[in-house]
Amino acid sequence: MIKELHFEVAEFQARLAAVKQEMAKRGIDVLLLSEPPNQNYLTGYNADSFYTPQMVIVALDHEEPIWVGRLMDRVSAVMTTYLADDNIRAYPESHVHSPVFSAYDVMADIVKDVGGEKTRIGVEMGGYYYSARAHADLVRALPLAEFVDADLLVGWIRLVKSPAELVIMRQAGQIADAAMKRVNDMVEIGVRECDIAAAVYQQQISGTAEFGGHYTCYPPVLCIGERSVAPHAVWTDEPVQNSTVINLELGGCRHRYHVFLARSIVVGTLSPTFLDLSKIAIEGLNLCLESVRPGRTCSEVFMAFHEALARYGIKKESRIGYPTGIGFPPGAGERTASIRKDDRTILEPGMVFHLMPGLWSDDVGITITQSFAVTEDGYEPLTKTPRKLFVK
Amino acid sequence: MIKELHFEVAEFQARLAAVKQEMAKRGIDVLLLSEPPNQNYLTGYNADSFYTPQMVIVALDHEEPIWVGRLMDRVSAVMTTYLADDNIRAYPESHVHSPVFSAYDVMADIVKDVGGEKTRIGVEMGGYYYSARAHADLVRALPLAEFVDADLLVGWIRLVKSPAELVIMRQAGQIADAAMKRVNDMVEIGVRECDIAAAVYQQQISGTAEFGGHYTCYPPVLCIGERSVAPHAVWTDEPVQNSTVINLELGGCRHRYHVFLARSIVVGTLSPTFLDLSKIAIEGLNLCLESVRPGRTCSEVFMAFHEALARYGIKKESRIGYPTGIGFPPGAGERTASIRKDDRTILEPGMVFHLMPGLWSDDVGITITQSFAVTEDGYEPLTKTPRKLFVK
Repeated sequence: MIKELHFEVAEFQARLAAVKQEMAKRGIDVLLLSEPPNQNYLTGYNADSFYTPQMVIVALDHEEPIWVGRLMDRVSAVMTTYLADDNIRAYPESHVHSPVFSAYDVMADIVKDVGGEKTRIGVEMGGYYYSARAHADLVRALPLAEFVDADLLVGWIRLVKSPAELVIMRQAGQIADAAMKRVNDMVEIGVRECDIAAAVYQQQISGTAEFGGHYTCYPPVLCIGERSVAPHAVWTDEPVQNSTVINLELGGCRHRYHVFLARSIVVGTLSPTFLDLSKIAIEGLNLCLESVRPGRTCSEVFMAFHEALARYGIKKESRIGYPTGIGFPPGAGERTASIRKDDRTILEPGMVFHLMPGLWSDDVGITITQSFAVTEDGYEPLTKTPRKLFVK
Repeated sequence: MIKELHFEVAEFQARLAAVKQEMAKRGIDVLLLSEPPNQNYLTGYNADSFYTPQMVIVALDHEEPIWVGRLMDRVSAVMTTYLADDNIRAYPESHVHSPVFSAYDVMADIVKDVGGEKTRIGVEMGGYYYSARAHADLVRALPLAEFVDADLLVGWIRLVKSPAELVIMRQAGQIADAAMKRVNDMVEIGVRECDIAAAVYQQQISGTAEFGGHYTCYPPVLCIGERSVAPHAVWTDEPVQNSTVINLELGGCRHRYHVFLARSIVVGTLSPTFLDLSKIAIEGLNLCLESVRPGRTCSEVFMAFHEALARYGIKKESRIGYPTGIGFPPGAGERTASIRKDDRTILEPGMVFHLMPGLWSDDVGITITQSFAVTEDGYEPLTKTPRKLFVK
């Protein structure tokens, strides 16, 4: 059987130790991880099977995590995790989309197996893959346990990336650069929006000559012309018109690690207002990046941008950055720290953020962004695309 | 403001009437729809905003559905739905990823607005976008209401497609055909797996010369060589070896409607066992398709395949087909009817299934599939790729 592990076993063990330490601190005996990124982080598990019930169970008294999923995906767990065979469990195919059987009953039995029947159990209440029914089924099957919300417990640990994770994220950044270059090379009046999106995908997945890419957990966002007021609109098959601004946000993905990048591309004539706005946006972005260093708070980094804009009489109150790392659909950000006014998270080396201060003036917007890792004394940009307005 | 509605308002009204009729039958006064496909079906809403809390509320006593989502996505609701402005509501940006505010409090207030405070409320307990926390917040905010599980209530209505939906699904089928042809043209020894996946994406999104495509809600599955035993494995950047079987499953997506297609592609030398197996698989698939007509049950269609295989001493017990239509990540199938032994669902004109009887013999598998719509007297294939083994 092929083994596809992207990290040393020692690294997985260090991650697990950090999670167990936090569990002990909060008095949690058993942690049920339903979020695919957390499952990947703690075991290496990687397959597109997360649309059926799947869990990684961490018990303080059980050495390794336990993966439990659908029987036909057991082989993916053997291939992609470091776990001993006994810690890879499965529920039968009869439990898939069944009105009779619940996969969560099987999971509850495993909790009992590891002595968790009467303990304090942490669950990810706000996760995408922990449905109201999943919770109801587990509470019914484990009536003597106490359930507590442990949403983001692993997320806060994931916030600081290891050197090995950063190696992969630099590759993801290279893929993002390649995809942006590809678009910049091909965009012109008359090209259909769907063909621009298709080029992004082709490059994202193909990656570079040295390594391939993967699909990003969130589609590229093409805010074009009139529809650019709708930040999450889908692309159409209409051709690009003259004098159009394209705000393109895309990502590179390598072994599920994501690095994002956005640029404004002007096709045709440039309005002077827009050019002025872009200069302010870039100045603010650069000052903001220069302010990054360990020990500072997210709020202080935000204020560097805020003050740069204030000089031009522009107010910006909403958040301008979010952390990224392992991503599975539908979420791209890590839902923990934010670069915004009131966020007191202290920066540490290894944290990765996508700094994306969008600037909007009436009906046009500009997005020139930068993904970076916090270093010992500043920041390392994870993409190399110039921080400038592209004009075609 | 641009309007992007892909159906007549009368069609949305007919869908709503069917949903309200079923609500009345079950004694449900207010229905909270968290599943993005159901929101799209009833209002037209289409944007990649479903990673934040979002709901469509149907109240028996309120004429139109009410869309409620994040403030910055309100404009997408105006653009893509037929709803009156008053039926498009939003919660403020302060409620996004907030440890303090819950978007579900805003939704509970809207339920009160339409007189639903003390009524029977249906929620989608098993949906992907109805988290344990969402349910807990709503139950807390509406203590006088009775909550009942209405999962799949809309799903069963969506099972039968209208003529206008079938027009779009035929386009999705054309895109799937184009993507499969693209792969078949480019696959050869030495091509990297990621470059095959990239070509699929490029064609899926680019679509055809007449109309563009969209991303499918589930990635293409490339089961190649040794990893073909893992049905949901991810592609690598390894080159294709000689004498390899590629089982490729992909979809075409148009306006969120999905049509799927899978083929086995042999690169290099063909084993006689595999050729024999493919002939049996195709014979079974064809006999199964010929058995399709309104009035028959899913189980009867399954048995046509089962009996065809039994002649060769092959037993197949697992389900061989699932319905498709509107899809959003992470799910591709509709989670209602299945073509399997014990499914008594009666076929009606307009139902669409992906018939995908995978056949496995020890370590090689074959997947030759067909998406079809049930017609007045049989079936209409929604893809035109020949039902045969491709050998390169």
